[in-house]
Amino acid sequence: MTPGGMTPGGTTPRGKFISLEGGEGAGKSTLLAGLHKHLLGQGVDLVQTREPGGTPLGEAVRGIVLDPARGDMSAESELLLMFASRAQLVRECIEPALAAGRWVLCDRFTDASFAYQGGGRGMPMERIAELERWATNGLKPDLTLLLDLPVADGRARAAGRSAADRIEVEADAFFERVRAAYRARAVAEPARFRMIDASLSQAQVLQAAVDATAHLFRASA
Amino acid sequence: MTPGGMTPGGTTPRGKFISLEGGEGAGKSTLLAGLHKHLLGQGVDLVQTREPGGTPLGEAVRGIVLDPARGDMSAESELLLMFASRAQLVRECIEPALAAGRWVLCDRFTDASFAYQGGGRGMPMERIAELERWATNGLKPDLTLLLDLPVADGRARAAGRSAADRIEVEADAFFERVRAAYRARAVAEPARFRMIDASLSQAQVLQAAVDATAHLFRASA
Repeated sequence: MTPGGMTPGGTTPRGKFISLEGGEGAGKSTLLAGLHKHLLGQGVDLVQTREPGGTPLGEAVRGIVLDPARGDMSAESELLLMFASRAQLVRECIEPALAAGRWVLCDRFTDASFAYQGGGRGMPMERIAELERWATNGLKPDLTLLLDLPVADGRARAAGRSAADRIEVEADAFFERVRAAYRARAVAEPARFRMIDASLSQAQVLQAAVDATAHLFRASA
Repeated sequence: MTPGGMTPGGTTPRGKFISLEGGEGAGKSTLLAGLHKHLLGQGVDLVQTREPGGTPLGEAVRGIVLDPARGDMSAESELLLMFASRAQLVRECIEPALAAGRWVLCDRFTDASFAYQGGGRGMPMERIAELERWATNGLKPDLTLLLDLPVADGRARAAGRSAADRIEVEADAFFERVRAAYRARAVAEPARFRMIDASLSQAQVLQAAVDATAHLFRASA
């Protein structure tokens, strides 16, 4: 059978859920494009989406949460907005896709809240875990690819880009805490996470990501 | 001393927080205007605000949450958006005003989430209470005026108004649950709530509200 296709018995196996995480300038967009192409080439019926956003509601929330003019947003409001977008994305997009046997490739997911709102802003991790339990029904990716890069290297790479959003303008210390929180999560859940050295070449990063997806095909065969 | 003014010793007494709750067509706007005028006449330094909204962030969230085109919004997202607006309102507006000795008159507050998202949508009350504990630091009004009216009467009154928002288009059964949840809260917290029969004349409703505020002046004297 092809991944996500019907089995001979007529039941549709659940699709696979892959999230991509990483700090500024780590090469997420490049890897997303490469991985998307690879998965399509493998015959995967793929939905690509992003956070915050991915639904009409989520994109409206994204417009608020990343607006550089909203510098006075409380950490509590930021966390709640991220989960408002996520709760909708899970119900409107991710769960229906997975149930239909499609795979989902998502640019950030709940790990980003643990890293940015938990590590970066200092919101209690247990509070984020509580939101995760009911706002997303505890849904976790089957595979999370973490692009890891020293903060200074990532910022140097991102320097030439378009205007920074409300979160990108934070100080280096903020992004050091984000990176530390991401790495701690990867260490705590080694079966789900694959940490990739983002200082490698684009081809090497893609190959590492492709290798990390191999077991998902075996599991659904 | 005047309410909210400096005491002879130079310390500023905390202001009083009044919220106004009620279903569609109960006469909230009319009472808000009347009560606002009364309190100003008593020399109160007053801030009037509303939920969702009341801050630039909150008003942006209000635009999303009441948009009739977003009929597919999940109950979880709705609850999280309401608290995102509320968390910002408490930190940016209500708490600074109260600390400066000003009074706050708010068109809806957390009781509305217990009534609409809890009673109306069926979200667990304990989940809402958990959000209340940290998103608003458990802040409760000193006085909550609940305009109570049978659902059919409220809808008949509201029928001639401008186009209904995303919540106003719900069925009668939804608003019956909202009303029941409001009344249950009023019964559970009699010291804070004052339930007013909204079928009375505007003058009678205003007088009942004015009477209910009397103890707030004594408490701050």
